[in-house]
Amino acid sequence: MEIFNQLESNVRGYCRSFPVVFESARNAVLTTVDGDDYIDFLGGAGTLNYGHNNPQFKQALIDYIEADGVTHGLDMHTGAKEAFLHSFNELILKPRDMDYKVQFTGPTGTNAVEAALKIARKNTGRQTIVSFTNGFHGVTQGSAAVTANGKYKKSIGMALPGVHFMPYDGYLGDFDTLKYFEKALQDGSSGLGHPAGVIVECIQGEGGLNAASAEWLRGLQALCRRYDMVMIVDDIQAGCGRSGRFFSFEEFGIEPDVITLSKSLGGYGLPMAIVLLKEHLDTWKPGEHNGTFRGNNHAFITARRALESYWKNDDFAQAVRSKASMVRSHLKQIQAEHGGQMKHKGRGMMQGLEMRTGELAERVCELAFERGLVIETSGSDGQVVKILAPLTIEEEQLKRGLSILSQCIADVMAEQISAAS
Amino acid sequence: MEIFNQLESNVRGYCRSFPVVFESARNAVLTTVDGDDYIDFLGGAGTLNYGHNNPQFKQALIDYIEADGVTHGLDMHTGAKEAFLHSFNELILKPRDMDYKVQFTGPTGTNAVEAALKIARKNTGRQTIVSFTNGFHGVTQGSAAVTANGKYKKSIGMALPGVHFMPYDGYLGDFDTLKYFEKALQDGSSGLGHPAGVIVECIQGEGGLNAASAEWLRGLQALCRRYDMVMIVDDIQAGCGRSGRFFSFEEFGIEPDVITLSKSLGGYGLPMAIVLLKEHLDTWKPGEHNGTFRGNNHAFITARRALESYWKNDDFAQAVRSKASMVRSHLKQIQAEHGGQMKHKGRGMMQGLEMRTGELAERVCELAFERGLVIETSGSDGQVVKILAPLTIEEEQLKRGLSILSQCIADVMAEQISAAS
Amino acid sequence: MEIFNQLESNVRGYCRSFPVVFESARNAVLTTVDGDDYIDFLGGAGTLNYGHNNPQFKQALIDYIEADGVTHGLDMHTGAKEAFLHSFNELILKPRDMDYKVQFTGPTGTNAVEAALKIARKNTGRQTIVSFTNGFHGVTQGSAAVTANGKYKKSIGMALPGVHFMPYDGYLGDFDTLKYFEKALQDGSSGLGHPAGVIVECIQGEGGLNAASAEWLRGLQALCRRYDMVMIVDDIQAGCGRSGRFFSFEEFGIEPDVITLSKSLGGYGLPMAIVLLKEHLDTWKPGEHNGTFRGNNHAFITARRALESYWKNDDFAQAVRSKASMVRSHLKQIQAEHGGQMKHKGRGMMQGLEMRTGELAERVCELAFERGLVIETSGSDGQVVKILAPLTIEEEQLKRGLSILSQCIADVMAEQISAAS
Amino acid sequence: MEIFNQLESNVRGYCRSFPVVFESARNAVLTTVDGDDYIDFLGGAGTLNYGHNNPQFKQALIDYIEADGVTHGLDMHTGAKEAFLHSFNELILKPRDMDYKVQFTGPTGTNAVEAALKIARKNTGRQTIVSFTNGFHGVTQGSAAVTANGKYKKSIGMALPGVHFMPYDGYLGDFDTLKYFEKALQDGSSGLGHPAGVIVECIQGEGGLNAASAEWLRGLQALCRRYDMVMIVDDIQAGCGRSGRFFSFEEFGIEPDVITLSKSLGGYGLPMAIVLLKEHLDTWKPGEHNGTFRGNNHAFITARRALESYWKNDDFAQAVRSKASMVRSHLKQIQAEHGGQMKHKGRGMMQGLEMRTGELAERVCELAFERGLVIETSGSDGQVVKILAPLTIEEEQLKRGLSILSQCIADVMAEQISAAS
Repeated sequence: MEIFNQLESNVRGYCRSFPVVFESARNAVLTTVDGDDYIDFLGGAGTLNYGHNNPQFKQALIDYIEADGVTHGLDMHTGAKEAFLHSFNELILKPRDMDYKVQFTGPTGTNAVEAALKIARKNTGRQTIVSFTNGFHGVTQGSAAVTANGKYKKSIGMALPGVHFMPYDGYLGDFDTLKYFEKALQDGSSGLGHPAGVIVECIQGEGGLNAASAEWLRGLQALCRRYDMVMIVDDIQAGCGRSGRFFSFEEFGIEPDVITLSKSLGGYGLPMAIVLLKEHLDTWKPGEHNGTFRGNNHAFITARRALESYWKNDDFAQAVRSKASMVRSHLKQIQAEHGGQMKHKGRGMMQGLEMRTGELAERVCELAFERGLVIETSGSDGQVVKILAPLTIEEEQLKRGLSILSQCIADVMAEQISAAS
Repeated sequence: MEIFNQLESNVRGYCRSFPVVFESARNAVLTTVDGDDYIDFLGGAGTLNYGHNNPQFKQALIDYIEADGVTHGLDMHTGAKEAFLHSFNELILKPRDMDYKVQFTGPTGTNAVEAALKIARKNTGRQTIVSFTNGFHGVTQGSAAVTANGKYKKSIGMALPGVHFMPYDGYLGDFDTLKYFEKALQDGSSGLGHPAGVIVECIQGEGGLNAASAEWLRGLQALCRRYDMVMIVDDIQAGCGRSGRFFSFEEFGIEPDVITLSKSLGGYGLPMAIVLLKEHLDTWKPGEHNGTFRGNNHAFITARRALESYWKNDDFAQAVRSKASMVRSHLKQIQAEHGGQMKHKGRGMMQGLEMRTGELAERVCELAFERGLVIETSGSDGQVVKILAPLTIEEEQLKRGLSILSQCIADVMAEQISAAS
Repeated sequence: MEIFNQLESNVRGYCRSFPVVFESARNAVLTTVDGDDYIDFLGGAGTLNYGHNNPQFKQALIDYIEADGVTHGLDMHTGAKEAFLHSFNELILKPRDMDYKVQFTGPTGTNAVEAALKIARKNTGRQTIVSFTNGFHGVTQGSAAVTANGKYKKSIGMALPGVHFMPYDGYLGDFDTLKYFEKALQDGSSGLGHPAGVIVECIQGEGGLNAASAEWLRGLQALCRRYDMVMIVDDIQAGCGRSGRFFSFEEFGIEPDVITLSKSLGGYGLPMAIVLLKEHLDTWKPGEHNGTFRGNNHAFITARRALESYWKNDDFAQAVRSKASMVRSHLKQIQAEHGGQMKHKGRGMMQGLEMRTGELAERVCELAFERGLVIETSGSDGQVVKILAPLTIEEEQLKRGLSILSQCIADVMAEQISAAS
Repeated sequence: MEIFNQLESNVRGYCRSFPVVFESARNAVLTTVDGDDYIDFLGGAGTLNYGHNNPQFKQALIDYIEADGVTHGLDMHTGAKEAFLHSFNELILKPRDMDYKVQFTGPTGTNAVEAALKIARKNTGRQTIVSFTNGFHGVTQGSAAVTANGKYKKSIGMALPGVHFMPYDGYLGDFDTLKYFEKALQDGSSGLGHPAGVIVECIQGEGGLNAASAEWLRGLQALCRRYDMVMIVDDIQAGCGRSGRFFSFEEFGIEPDVITLSKSLGGYGLPMAIVLLKEHLDTWKPGEHNGTFRGNNHAFITARRALESYWKNDDFAQAVRSKASMVRSHLKQIQAEHGGQMKHKGRGMMQGLEMRTGELAERVCELAFERGLVIETSGSDGQVVKILAPLTIEEEQLKRGLSILSQCIADVMAEQISAAS
């Protein structure tokens, strides 16, 4: 590992928590160069919904490569893109009665977010985007502006204009935060002005697994319509089945104006990102938002296979919801065992436990790694232990992982008691 | 192609110039679903220096996929990353006596640029970045701020603070533009203030193939040192051998503080980007600049093979310079044939002809496509016909492409004359 | 009046509500060129606390002019400035145990605010200023950024970085708005970051006579100290005795880091503004914030006389509090007569009635003007009828003005009823 | 003077150079509390074109005060304002065939500049203002953004968006700086984009007495018209007769879209500022740009008298030009005596000598003060000794002042030689 320390920038992060060298991976298992196996509850931070190196897509990818299928094609038409678009339309958009145009941006989430912000500003001629406490949308300058975390904002080195933060659902306890938002919109002297749009995650992944309620999200959509604001749902982490449905907002009956997707969209862990936008917002001029890798054809191949393998009917989504239910029961039980010491967070296969401090959560993850489980924290102080296992994880492994987690938490709680006495 | 028109956003660009569906590709040839072949002088806008689906890397990629090598690993250690770092160090950095840390950013050029800007601002505590007329660095907000093209700036929808544009080498005819830059630095009342750094391309790809002279670049480096500004060379398009050497500044004896690389770095057209930074600038905190796809292991596999196949000695670079020389002769001859109607631009395998108008240049490319050659324009009015063929293109194909180009230009000139009479 | 319509810009405002030409004025009475008298409840928007052309200062001003006292002296030492500083120190600062440096800025409130914002940013090296809903601080760019009213922000024509709005005391009904502020400070992912400072009015003049409670202001000061934020009290409208004490925060026992004063400071309605700042914040370099008229010696003469005439003991302040009490009783009575139709606002001699709509409030002021009373509205929709009579107004005139007001409100209420039926 | 050191902020500037206390002043003479007289070549930094306490206006001011004329009237109609508007129209606008609306802003130059910038941005819907190297326009945030001097920009503590600096006439030696501006406008990829407007001083006062040529200013106006940019001439320091005509651009035949005036406009050194704007740009909504002191009636009284005393015919302007010619001859002679050691700068009664360093210029002013002459430096390094004597200065005093200056320069040159040997 010497070369990493010697050559790689200090910015490297995850490798510090998991100081081994991984060589191969299958579904929910990572294997090191030394042959050690780890259960993966990190899931590529939401990128591996279909597991590592999903065998259903693997051969298609190899076949494509062997046939010299176009790998890099900018945004030219390719057969691979055509097939993806067709499947996305038939399996995702049409069955949900969703009428959107598809924009292929640079293949990272932050690029899709930057495009979405431009869409809101271009189409309204206004500048302010309302974002929410604990929201995370990326670290390029436009995305960092709408990201709440001060660490990312500070490293930009400049004030970031054009954004106004509002408290997310639940941020002020019982107080309905939309009431504040609405008052600020009604009141020409609130300091808010007339925003171009809002950007929101239905479940805040990096922000600590805060899940907005159906009522709040519906109320937010109503506000957007009443005040002519473009509603952007950033579904990069919570989308692609993670919530138990393809989109994280699906069960709430809302219809955002703009949706960003990335992470698990490519299916195989390959970089890919799209923006879905209502037709009347599609005022882009050709090439106005571009990017060298906006057509990652390898990802198109696996993305299409992912759709065809898992979204032809509701079976997969049901299985996800069933696993989510198992995770919920398990976490609720841990919580019950350590009454008041921790709090259940999240929904779908995006759940976790909020510990009293970031140190405790980190210690849990540290112990877990020693015992063969890769898992990370989230939240503003890293206080939330966050389970983001592949949705395709076998039940047996899921249980094993949860069981390691239970044990680690019990041990950390015991350490606390012994340290206190 | 109906599905593209129906579903894909109006933002799509290249596919409008090349209205066919490509299926496969090898080296410098693109093949449509109908079996038609096109010579590729577009080269993925600089991404395909080693050609399409280079057979030397292809098997390594397939082998890695077949062995379930880690595809997606965030910034965790993987064997694939280790091997890439090792090769990059041995084949690129050490032989050039270059001492840099490597930062893996999100796998797009613009992400590397955004990181580079942060590095300059964080380390100096200042905000202004000096960028140059006709410079292009990407379309996310930070990169768009330092991009000169108004089209990209406008679509941000906001004033973009923290940047000051200076005229590039040659922008003011014989007037030495560095004189202006230096005066503005010396003069506390120039409006410039003390910049954090500069970002510059040694050859401006999108900007119309303007190539800075050795003297100018050395002078710029001297200014950066004298005024304590971080010098960023954006080598995303001109790097990886395009200039006839690995780095576009290599032959000029300068040593930038920060270098961005992407496009052809991955070798096979797969998304990958890095920032090279001097150790004293590596003040990043862990995870301060992050991104889901910053570890694209498939690209590590092919990137390493590209280094090992082409950069173990100077043979490849010499071949590139030889081809560049051939292109130069050919273009000079075209220019001579149409005295005063066009101007030779660029250097290395990044050359072209500036036509009197963008319309003429577009017409040339249109005719070329009809005759089996994919080629695009660049420059602020799209007035430069730009040759960016794979460096690995066979001489025969290069000649054929150049010959098509000659004929198209002759025909367009003839059209002009006939239209005028 | 033709010349005004012909030559003066459309930006003119008050003259549209009071379409007469005023010629002279004494204490609380304005007289037109036609000899008509109006009682003045507008008070120069807070500039005429000591009435129009106060006879106690008038002779001093004439004497100074006759003696060719320096009128314009930039920021050179003059006898007039010396005398003002001496009186301000002896009569205002020392008796209140206040230890501040005095900065003479350009003689307008907004200039003092701009200087105060710089002080907060320079001394902390941070950028964000927290301002509050309905706050008004001026219309130059820095001040407009911290002003909540969208009308003023919009006319800047750009996003205004470096400010974050928080809800003022009472903005969210019973919900304690400081709880939100504190949570946002504690939470590194709230989007707020670490502010440089806050700017607050203890009574919001333009914002609709919202008066913050003692607890809230003390809590705000505590937050500022705990989180190392510079606390700026903008006392331009509520200061100089308007609240019943010299400073509007005086009775609450807080001690801001920076205080802005203007409007009535000059005493005679002459332009003057100062910033009071704690010594450790006085890191200005000579001339770093300048301005041609920062030494308005005529204003120094009358300002000093105002201090000596009214602030040698508590008599004047007591008289103000007594008048304020009379106003309060009167307004409460009006409110009682029209149960639920209006709401009492403000404190000190800065009180008013919030009507159900801006139209109603405007109609009240229109009727009042017809009946010899000059009075204006405030609030985000102009819904608050605002009494800002000179503090020196004779009781008889105050009663007469209040009586006109009662009658106008009664008539407007009657108009409402008759219109509805 | 103790109280100044004890109480006044460190920001005080001029008083450090002239460490006496001034008590009274007449025309070009300042008198201290100790009865010492100083010839005033500082002229209130351009505010005292008609001298200190001009006797022609003095009695009118006293009369107005004695009659209890309205002192403070916000922007209500007053007789004093009416009379000023009438005289300004008859004596300034009409004779010059100038068709403008008059906006009364807060009574400081920077406030007029902030309004002018809003006018350009509001009316074009664009954001960028082009300003010029060495330009000075004020220190509030909007004005500081278009001010070139880094000292003022830095104290804002934030990046200042929406401005682009271009080199002023002569900044690049023989190179025509408008050529660069024009190229940047033509070239959509220059980084400039389409500006809202330009702001320019015809003679840069703070910037070191750089005077733009007639050709350059006409060319700039032509550019503004061709590219639909609002042309703002900031005539705050060079206007009101300083150049030898009322407006500094008058003799060049240009007609700016917006003109800012302040400083000597009030005539007596009282705060006053206006913006002149073409009628089609007068899209202000009532009260959209406001300010407590925008109607300084005392200044209206003296401003009107100044117009009537000095601008009824060309006599005064001719006298100014005659004095300017005398100054020029004198300075040229000094220059000749010290060949190559200094450079003549400026035009009209706004001339000076550029020394080799700021230290030398400061030393000259220091010696001058010891010998009874108040004079200051300007320029980015304070390298220009700047003569801004009242235009009404008696020839005898002007000569005396120039003679002191000659002697001081000779002595400083001698010091240099003796120090070097």
